[in-house]
Amino acid sequence: MNFSSKLIEQAVEAFAGLPGIGRKTALRLTLHLVGKEAENTERFAEALLNLRRNIKHCDICHNLSDESVCNVCADKRRDRSLVCVVESIRDVMAIEDTAQYRGLYHVLGGLINPLEGIGPGDLEIGSLLQRVADGEIKEIILAISPTIEGDTTMFYISKKLKDSGVNVSTIARGVAFGGELEYADELTLGRSIVARLPYKLNND
Amino acid sequence: MNFSSKLIEQAVEAFAGLPGIGRKTALRLTLHLVGKEAENTERFAEALLNLRRNIKHCDICHNLSDESVCNVCADKRRDRSLVCVVESIRDVMAIEDTAQYRGLYHVLGGLINPLEGIGPGDLEIGSLLQRVADGEIKEIILAISPTIEGDTTMFYISKKLKDSGVNVSTIARGVAFGGELEYADELTLGRSIVARLPYKLNND
Repeated sequence: MNFSSKLIEQAVEAFAGLPGIGRKTALRLTLHLVGKEAENTERFAEALLNLRRNIKHCDICHNLSDESVCNVCADKRRDRSLVCVVESIRDVMAIEDTAQYRGLYHVLGGLINPLEGIGPGDLEIGSLLQRVADGEIKEIILAISPTIEGDTTMFYISKKLKDSGVNVSTIARGVAFGGELEYADELTLGRSIVARLPYKLNND
Repeated sequence: MNFSSKLIEQAVEAFAGLPGIGRKTALRLTLHLVGKEAENTERFAEALLNLRRNIKHCDICHNLSDESVCNVCADKRRDRSLVCVVESIRDVMAIEDTAQYRGLYHVLGGLINPLEGIGPGDLEIGSLLQRVADGEIKEIILAISPTIEGDTTMFYISKKLKDSGVNVSTIARGVAFGGELEYADELTLGRSIVARLPYKLNND
């Protein structure tokens, strides 16, 4: 691309540094900002700077938070004996969106991945074991993607928790609601037959 | 989406205000910034603020520019008798990328569009007529998309320039290089037969 302006070029480079944004899209976003009032760009930059300067990790669950304790951990109405272990804040948001879970979380900040040099020490596993050792927790739910890295991480954590006395569970796997059997992959379908449940007439 | 953090929510809203970026992508971009060093976000915001605060329109061609005269208009080696009229800076960049054009530009800043209330007075048409009246220009090339708005704009400008004594041309339309005939639309193919050119053996 042949920029007639250094200012535009720098803004395009800045946008193109974000994941999934190519130079054509970056130019489109840049020209959008130029086309709107200056106040618009000021507010945009302000929101990002404000985020980056003030965001914290919750002291308890290590989720991203505005305060030193996040609003899930600070919520007195939540069940403090139940902790759901997830990879990242996205998973917390996905589970919160279901409105089905009233326990706390523990955000690992990644998964064990030897190929990328990420070992248990790089994740918030030590702090999870410490929370368990503190005694309030009765059940740990491992809500981690069933990939190679996820399975490795779940295996590592469950082994570490074996003698702790807490129950360790994982979220149910199976054919998705509304999903057609013929399109389910073999592994999922096979497992969902093995792990079949009694059919309940009244859904209670 | 259920945000555990106001800071994240505000950053997501800011990104989601950009064209073509939904809330899922906005969250991904926000978490990308949180995952990188703070310096990264500072530089990003700096580039955008710097752009919005300092960008100008060239006094001559009305293209976006760092200075009051853009570097195309300031370039003494370019042919000042030839002016290419385009809709926006994107078209200038596309034509500059071809490295085939050595004249100047005139950026209209839009096209005549009565449905959206954009008339000739909202565009840089008056300033184009003034440039022509100043006498240095011999040819005007209308490089405008052949849409309804583009055709209207070309018609309006060419009518205004009828008695000015300058040549008015438009860019050639036809089947694209590398394009397959069977996939060309009927109008383009029909026009390219009517406007056929003598075949040159040596491409000179």
